Amino acid sequence: MSLRVTDESKDIDITNVSSSHRQLQQLPYVHKVGKPPKQNLLKEVAATVKETFFADDPLRHFKDQPRSRKFVLGLETVFPIFEWGRKYNFSKFKGDLIAGLTIASLCIPQDIGYAKLANLNPQYGLYGSFVPPLVYAFMGSSRDIAIGPVAVVSLLLGTLLQSEIDSSENPLDYRCLAFTATFFAGITQFILGFFRLGFLIDFLSHAAIVGFMAGAAITIALQQLKGLLGIQHFTKKSDIISVMQSVWTTVHHGWNWQTIIIGMSFLALLLLAKYIGKKNQKYFWVPAIAPFISIILATLIVYATRADKQGVQIVKHIRKGINPSSADQIFFSGEYLAKGFRIGVVAGMVALTEAVVIGRTFASMKDYQLDGNKEMVALGTMNVVGSLTSCYVTTGSFSRSAVNCMAGCHTPVSNIVMSLVVLLTLELITPLFNYTPNAILASIIISAVLGLVDVEAAILIWKTDKFDFVACMGAFFGVVFSSVEIGLLIAISISFAKILLQVTRPRTAVLGKIPRTNVYRNILQYPEASKVPGILIVRVDSAIYFSNSNYIKERILRWLTDEEEKLKENSQPRIQFLIVEMSPVTDIDTSGIHAFEELYRSLLKRDITLVLANPGPVVVDKIHASGFAELIGEDKIFLTVADAVLTFAPKMEEP
Amino acid sequence: MSLRVTDESKDIDITNVSSSHRQLQQLPYVHKVGKPPKQNLLKEVAATVKETFFADDPLRHFKDQPRSRKFVLGLETVFPIFEWGRKYNFSKFKGDLIAGLTIASLCIPQDIGYAKLANLNPQYGLYGSFVPPLVYAFMGSSRDIAIGPVAVVSLLLGTLLQSEIDSSENPLDYRCLAFTATFFAGITQFILGFFRLGFLIDFLSHAAIVGFMAGAAITIALQQLKGLLGIQHFTKKSDIISVMQSVWTTVHHGWNWQTIIIGMSFLALLLLAKYIGKKNQKYFWVPAIAPFISIILATLIVYATRADKQGVQIVKHIRKGINPSSADQIFFSGEYLAKGFRIGVVAGMVALTEAVVIGRTFASMKDYQLDGNKEMVALGTMNVVGSLTSCYVTTGSFSRSAVNCMAGCHTPVSNIVMSLVVLLTLELITPLFNYTPNAILASIIISAVLGLVDVEAAILIWKTDKFDFVACMGAFFGVVFSSVEIGLLIAISISFAKILLQVTRPRTAVLGKIPRTNVYRNILQYPEASKVPGILIVRVDSAIYFSNSNYIKERILRWLTDEEEKLKENSQPRIQFLIVEMSPVTDIDTSGIHAFEELYRSLLKRDITLVLANPGPVVVDKIHASGFAELIGEDKIFLTVADAVLTFAPKMEEP
Repeated sequence: MSLRVTDESKDIDITNVSSSHRQLQQLPYVHKVGKPPKQNLLKEVAATVKETFFADDPLRHFKDQPRSRKFVLGLETVFPIFEWGRKYNFSKFKGDLIAGLTIASLCIPQDIGYAKLANLNPQYGLYGSFVPPLVYAFMGSSRDIAIGPVAVVSLLLGTLLQSEIDSSENPLDYRCLAFTATFFAGITQFILGFFRLGFLIDFLSHAAIVGFMAGAAITIALQQLKGLLGIQHFTKKSDIISVMQSVWTTVHHGWNWQTIIIGMSFLALLLLAKYIGKKNQKYFWVPAIAPFISIILATLIVYATRADKQGVQIVKHIRKGINPSSADQIFFSGEYLAKGFRIGVVAGMVALTEAVVIGRTFASMKDYQLDGNKEMVALGTMNVVGSLTSCYVTTGSFSRSAVNCMAGCHTPVSNIVMSLVVLLTLELITPLFNYTPNAILASIIISAVLGLVDVEAAILIWKTDKFDFVACMGAFFGVVFSSVEIGLLIAISISFAKILLQVTRPRTAVLGKIPRTNVYRNILQYPEASKVPGILIVRVDSAIYFSNSNYIKERILRWLTDEEEKLKENSQPRIQFLIVEMSPVTDIDTSGIHAFEELYRSLLKRDITLVLANPGPVVVDKIHASGFAELIGEDKIFLTVADAVLTFAPKMEEP
Repeated sequence: MSLRVTDESKDIDITNVSSSHRQLQQLPYVHKVGKPPKQNLLKEVAATVKETFFADDPLRHFKDQPRSRKFVLGLETVFPIFEWGRKYNFSKFKGDLIAGLTIASLCIPQDIGYAKLANLNPQYGLYGSFVPPLVYAFMGSSRDIAIGPVAVVSLLLGTLLQSEIDSSENPLDYRCLAFTATFFAGITQFILGFFRLGFLIDFLSHAAIVGFMAGAAITIALQQLKGLLGIQHFTKKSDIISVMQSVWTTVHHGWNWQTIIIGMSFLALLLLAKYIGKKNQKYFWVPAIAPFISIILATLIVYATRADKQGVQIVKHIRKGINPSSADQIFFSGEYLAKGFRIGVVAGMVALTEAVVIGRTFASMKDYQLDGNKEMVALGTMNVVGSLTSCYVTTGSFSRSAVNCMAGCHTPVSNIVMSLVVLLTLELITPLFNYTPNAILASIIISAVLGLVDVEAAILIWKTDKFDFVACMGAFFGVVFSSVEIGLLIAISISFAKILLQVTRPRTAVLGKIPRTNVYRNILQYPEASKVPGILIVRVDSAIYFSNSNYIKERILRWLTDEEEKLKENSQPRIQFLIVEMSPVTDIDTSGIHAFEELYRSLLKRDITLVLANPGPVVVDKIHASGFAELIGEDKIFLTVADAVLTFAPKMEEP
């Protein structure tokens, strides 16, 4: 006999069930609620710890392997290069070579510019694209990420450091503090990864990141007006108000028209290149190499026309040669130790978030697994080594990683290629950059950071989740109108507020029977669902913890009161059974049990029977352990709401 | 036809469904997933705000009432006395009178002792049982709570204040700071209630409170050894180590045997009385009046024997007369303002927690509703008024409230009776207390606080939830071995850690079909449940937010990998459909949607179809708004897992 008939046949009219003897004789088959095999405490704890810190089960490959193999696996775990290195071949290398050259041409001009965001001399940007990528190439497991200094972190670091030491007054201490911060940023990242605390960065929500990035991009772009307009005296503040002021106040005198011409024309050029790249995927290399070409052109122009004599500001001097050691420049004592530590932790977390987001994005795009914690260890080591070799905080760059991926990279080798190119640049051609006008750097940075403003994402967030949108906008305006730290702070606090809201005010719903099925669903979602007379079915949509147990209890009682009022008006039979659908209740703690005991008592006073439907394994355990099951009676616990209804509907007293 | 047959008939063997034409011809009746009526943004926000701050719908009575009635109702809301006052009668008064006298006889000795815990002179304890209870009687809505100074808050306040000002060196400033703290404690409580932020105190879990209370009780009892053994020089620290040290060091000289005799004998007496009261409910009054009687006896003995000449320490002097005004003694400026504020907030929150816990307990015992926020406003006003009339922070007392309830109180009138008795005491008999030995006060306090150590509760917590037990013990040992603040800190941080854990690591489960039903449940809980070949069914047991979206995605993929490995070993058909049971997923944010898009993509690469079962109203909204529904296809979203299985099982490709 067909299922269709079956389902219809199940759609018995509960109201007159009690009068129907047929039903009474043959009660439905009711399956007992399973009590999971009792676990001992140690197992429980172990399981929790595992799920919390080793959710990805990093040691699964090590299981039942000979010791020698284990060693090799361990080596591969720490240095993935030994893993993918064996399968490496020429065809892959071709891809990596092209990608490496492309991102190199992109990173050199960007690095010089970003260094200025961090209030450091140009070469320190280039240093960051030499050592760290090499380290990452050996330890990192993301194939597409492009390592180096990035705009947002440079700005953040610059602002934080500047608030401690004035870079123009005391550049040496400033630089030392920068390295100290970098060192501790690396330590932070390493520790987070090593102790499997990677999940902590998940507390910065996607929406918050979108807002923060956009805000930072705008701020950075505004900062570039200094270089773009050739303004001499510019505010040190980063908020839009003060920037705009110092732009307007200098409008009559202090703008330099030659600078403006160079800057604007090249900005137009770069944006055009960007547009071409967007229009047609196969021209991705146009925006990729455009900056490098324009920087050369601009330099030549300035050199030819000696425009620097007409007040066009130029880079002037980039130190030749590779990274000098900076081990002796890190503050391991004194007042700056604490400051460096604080700044390092903040910058490290932000850098980490950016890198992990990038890593995940490309990993899911190309569908390969990425161990977040392993990544963090790699990034941490990279930054520690960096801090000893005159680099400031580096991480994965959005724009360059995208180019790297489009250019067809296969492995981190592209990073090695890039760093070798940077090596050559440092050793040979840095002097050529002396005549590079700051204006071109400004326009390069602007065109680069504009990519961080993701309007589509913001719109999608608005469509999807209004609360997320608030977080997004909060972070955005926080950064734009106040400062990066404030923006970050707002983003994090809103994110946390959301979590707290989630755990204090869980949803509850009244369920009704969906016609022609045996399924009970939220009557607000399914208006066709019909309530069962004399029975109120409430679903609790969250684990029941101290933070929400009282609310849940009171909410259920309110559902009941509202229902009873309605019934009185229409003089319908009173509620005799309250069924609580527990499917979504994944866990309950002592406060929760207390709340339910109180609920049970107040129901008892109103002569209403409390019934539980489908409690999960943990909950079953606990209601038995606490003796609550005995209190309400084992026979009041059912596998499904349907079972409960079919069991009690006949027992209903006649109105 | 009977349901039993129906259910069995449904138990078709899915494995050979594809080959069974009967099934293919008549596909099951599949109900469409409901899309809830679209709400506009304002409505949504309003609803959220209401559920967060006005969950208990405090204005429900005001709906469609004439203005005059509204005014009366408003008055009754602020001063419940006008509500129950109208129904007040003599029989009720009798109960209240007896109860009031009983708690008065209990509170007078306790107050004198508790004042010493707060390093204040005895009369300040009595003041606290005069004014605040009167205020509460008019504004409070709990019928059983007994207001006055309590042990834990007195100790907490004492410790916090002592760390700022030494009470023995500078008693005046100390007292002023105490009143300042009391003032701000009241303000805090009032604000929390007025702005409906009452749910904030729910963040202190039941388990944490049990541990904290027990720890405080032990600490207080230890403190009493000073009075009980007649030790002159006693440590100012409250942790068990230093207390024990100063007890042992003084063992040979410094203990006073007369004191010990008095103290110990009366302690024995009190404990005996307690025992009698416990043994037989109708003798509840024995432990209730025992303290008062023994204080009188002890005083007479000392007076008769002039034991104070033999070094038995006595109260010496209690100021006669009612509360003097202290409005001029509150610091509204200067360095102590901030300190007073800080201490006030902490003490206020703790006091609030205690009062609300008591209120809820008795409310649910006698089954009457209690508006937490209204209570807070009442308690806040009470403490503000108290701070202006020389009272330090007062709240509901566990022991006295219990006695009050057992003595048969009906309304807060019992508090009025008590405060009147205290008034007489202050006006007339305070001088009699001059010869009261500290030893008797010590033994009274010990016997009182021992009731706060709830071993049964601790055992139940251990049985129910191990994590809660950790919180409980953490708070306990924190208080005993360090200090009350540390204990409180530990309790709160563990509680928060639990919440964060809950939201970062939600549970997931693989579902199987329970034989002879159409129900799919966790196979770990129901070992008899059978997996459906070619289909993996995973249930996600939490709302999907940024804090857990990545974990959930990776966890689901891991379930899949594990399953596929198993299948390979037994060379069974590969997984072709992944059904995600969404019933428990009450909400999803943009990060969640992203995670699911990534999941969808990686499944696509493995040629596995992603299917959703029973998404809730909010989730349905969002997966449509974000376009995810279109991405996976509307026809991949089902009302139940059963529907999904019955739809796809036939479509399965032959192995």
